Amino acid sequence: MARLNEHYKKLSAGYLFPEIGRRTRLFQESHPEAQILRLGIGNTTEPLTPAVVQGLHDGVSRLASRDTYTGYGDEQGMEELRKKLADFYAARSVTLDIDEIFISDGAKPDSGNIQSIFAQDCVVAFQDPAYPVYVDTNVIAGRSGEFNSSSGKYRGLVYLPCTEQNGFFPDLPETKVDLLYICSPNNPTGATASHQQLSEYVSYARKHGGVVIFDASYSEYISDPSLPRSIYEVEGAEECAIEINSFSKFAGFTGVRLGWSVVPKALVTEESAAGEANRLWFRRQTTFFNGASNIVQHGGLSVLSPEGLEECRGLIGYYMENARVIREGLKSLGLTVYGGDNAPYLWLKTPGGMSSWDFFDKLLQETWVIGTPGSGFGPAGEGFFRLSAFGHREDVEEAVSRIQSRLKL
Amino acid sequence: MARLNEHYKKLSAGYLFPEIGRRTRLFQESHPEAQILRLGIGNTTEPLTPAVVQGLHDGVSRLASRDTYTGYGDEQGMEELRKKLADFYAARSVTLDIDEIFISDGAKPDSGNIQSIFAQDCVVAFQDPAYPVYVDTNVIAGRSGEFNSSSGKYRGLVYLPCTEQNGFFPDLPETKVDLLYICSPNNPTGATASHQQLSEYVSYARKHGGVVIFDASYSEYISDPSLPRSIYEVEGAEECAIEINSFSKFAGFTGVRLGWSVVPKALVTEESAAGEANRLWFRRQTTFFNGASNIVQHGGLSVLSPEGLEECRGLIGYYMENARVIREGLKSLGLTVYGGDNAPYLWLKTPGGMSSWDFFDKLLQETWVIGTPGSGFGPAGEGFFRLSAFGHREDVEEAVSRIQSRLKL
Repeated sequence: MARLNEHYKKLSAGYLFPEIGRRTRLFQESHPEAQILRLGIGNTTEPLTPAVVQGLHDGVSRLASRDTYTGYGDEQGMEELRKKLADFYAARSVTLDIDEIFISDGAKPDSGNIQSIFAQDCVVAFQDPAYPVYVDTNVIAGRSGEFNSSSGKYRGLVYLPCTEQNGFFPDLPETKVDLLYICSPNNPTGATASHQQLSEYVSYARKHGGVVIFDASYSEYISDPSLPRSIYEVEGAEECAIEINSFSKFAGFTGVRLGWSVVPKALVTEESAAGEANRLWFRRQTTFFNGASNIVQHGGLSVLSPEGLEECRGLIGYYMENARVIREGLKSLGLTVYGGDNAPYLWLKTPGGMSSWDFFDKLLQETWVIGTPGSGFGPAGEGFFRLSAFGHREDVEEAVSRIQSRLKL
Repeated sequence: MARLNEHYKKLSAGYLFPEIGRRTRLFQESHPEAQILRLGIGNTTEPLTPAVVQGLHDGVSRLASRDTYTGYGDEQGMEELRKKLADFYAARSVTLDIDEIFISDGAKPDSGNIQSIFAQDCVVAFQDPAYPVYVDTNVIAGRSGEFNSSSGKYRGLVYLPCTEQNGFFPDLPETKVDLLYICSPNNPTGATASHQQLSEYVSYARKHGGVVIFDASYSEYISDPSLPRSIYEVEGAEECAIEINSFSKFAGFTGVRLGWSVVPKALVTEESAAGEANRLWFRRQTTFFNGASNIVQHGGLSVLSPEGLEECRGLIGYYMENARVIREGLKSLGLTVYGGDNAPYLWLKTPGGMSSWDFFDKLLQETWVIGTPGSGFGPAGEGFFRLSAFGHREDVEEAVSRIQSRLKL
């Protein structure tokens, strides 16, 4: 008789966003006059830019004519798009072969699926707090024990705390681990790793034969030229790191769906020569995936055109101005806030040592503003609160103004 | 030290299409004058229809304006699209709740991923020959032993031969199996299961607690009103069957990427109550997937509009006329050919008991026409040859004409 995958049972309930929704609904019902504003969403709000819209329309129009219609393409993506991405990396002095670049329908699927090319008994380490997909997909794959609700951790997984003390970039693991998920600029803390910090992880991985899964989905929000936007800017990273990136926050493609992963041919693992991990990911993608939409890939080409890049820089500038408004506003109240300078997320230390959820309730009740409790991203997120720079400017300004005038500190 | 997923090593090389490519290249090099025609591809060739093109353009235009821009949507798809699909099923007397319908980026990913919600020790049965994704994804998930190159089978998997004797629909398994992959109309044989045939599988699954994974990607090619286009037309199927379908061949979306799966709430498995498999697939999709492109989902809405459905029927009619041309042409030579009446594939019995690959070479050398050797889809495909109805009419006519005039029988 067919049985279900028992590892799903270990998953702690997807509690964070449903609980935010529940508390928000309850508050709205008892305060129908409240105009609730959201500073908590990790979702783009501004329209696509003109060159990109044109590229997408062109992608559609090509399918309307027999001469330009295309059906299935290569699962790893259009060669032209992979070439443009190779050029994009070359502009930051990273040399990649187009066979090392795999186009996908976004960073979330790649972040979730990448673990599947590794053995089930790999020991996996995560930044704490972190984007929940890294942990959940490894739990489903059977790499953890049960969830311990008192610690907020799964047994068998290694949590690397990101704290004020370490600048929200984790110290190296104390035990030997095989896979290490690093996200920089970070969701949720907004911290961006320095060259030195990434170098230490690359050295660790090369020494212990580990693999770094580097999520660079927010790389285009880095304005400080001294900060690496790709892990391959660190020497030797091609031997030990896989990089995942996305057009979602880069170009407003959250709903459009386009991303890419880099699996270098130089990557080595235990019992596997250089090239084998690259071939396995190719086999994974050609077996389980049928390529990103050809329409969307045409949009991606437009993002990477000179006009597209210029326009997307403008879009990012818009969100980063939101981040500045939030940061300055909160600092004017004497609050401690991190991030928001090279990342679209701000990481607010809750005042007076309040719990993340208590601060959620306080902020909602006093200011009608919603954010995301830091504890929802992992136990080390307790006592913090994520605010996001995505939103219309006037909403962000109104939310900050309300916090300034109404939050009781 | 990180190790790779060892199950990938069991996969026999992706031999079929690379080998077709290799033989074709060699032939073209030695015969530069040959105008090679392809009757072997499972890929659409005709442009999208006007209403659908308009829907896709509208989907793009919505993203260009702040008032209509959308970012992340529900991973399971737009509610409006799921409602339209529920209506689409209702029109064939199948009642589905919209929470039982999951929009995806195509039938291939769903066919590959669906096994992941089941336990690793499930025994899995496949039609032989079959679409290779079913087998390969189960091998990667660790449900098989090694590949046996003399039998052409993986140890531990159950192969259900589809032969002339059983009308290319398999007899029930002789041993107890947990998951059964059935594709109807079938790729590659073009056979379409009757109500009675599906009923037998549903009865078997309900009796033994098995789950049927029913791939209905070619359902819209069925013209015989007595043949079921959904497995849920069979009583009780909602307790034991998952259905996967696609806009690829239905509307020419092979490159556009849109599909759906149905996981009924009534589905029961060992140790799981009704509803649990549905919740697991929801959890799987919300964890590993971020929804199909919003642009593409707007295109899907247009496909399901009255004009879209009418136009897509025209598109399917075009390909089915190709199928008729191929079938009649081959029959005029006295060849034995199956399928092509309710499916876009034809299954040619190779003349004189030739092997599939020998016939491939003969067809290429004598007529400059390419097809797909049946043995590439599984050992029971040996001695057969897949021809596809996708292609421009004039190419199909020219190919058939060449076969008629040049093939030495």
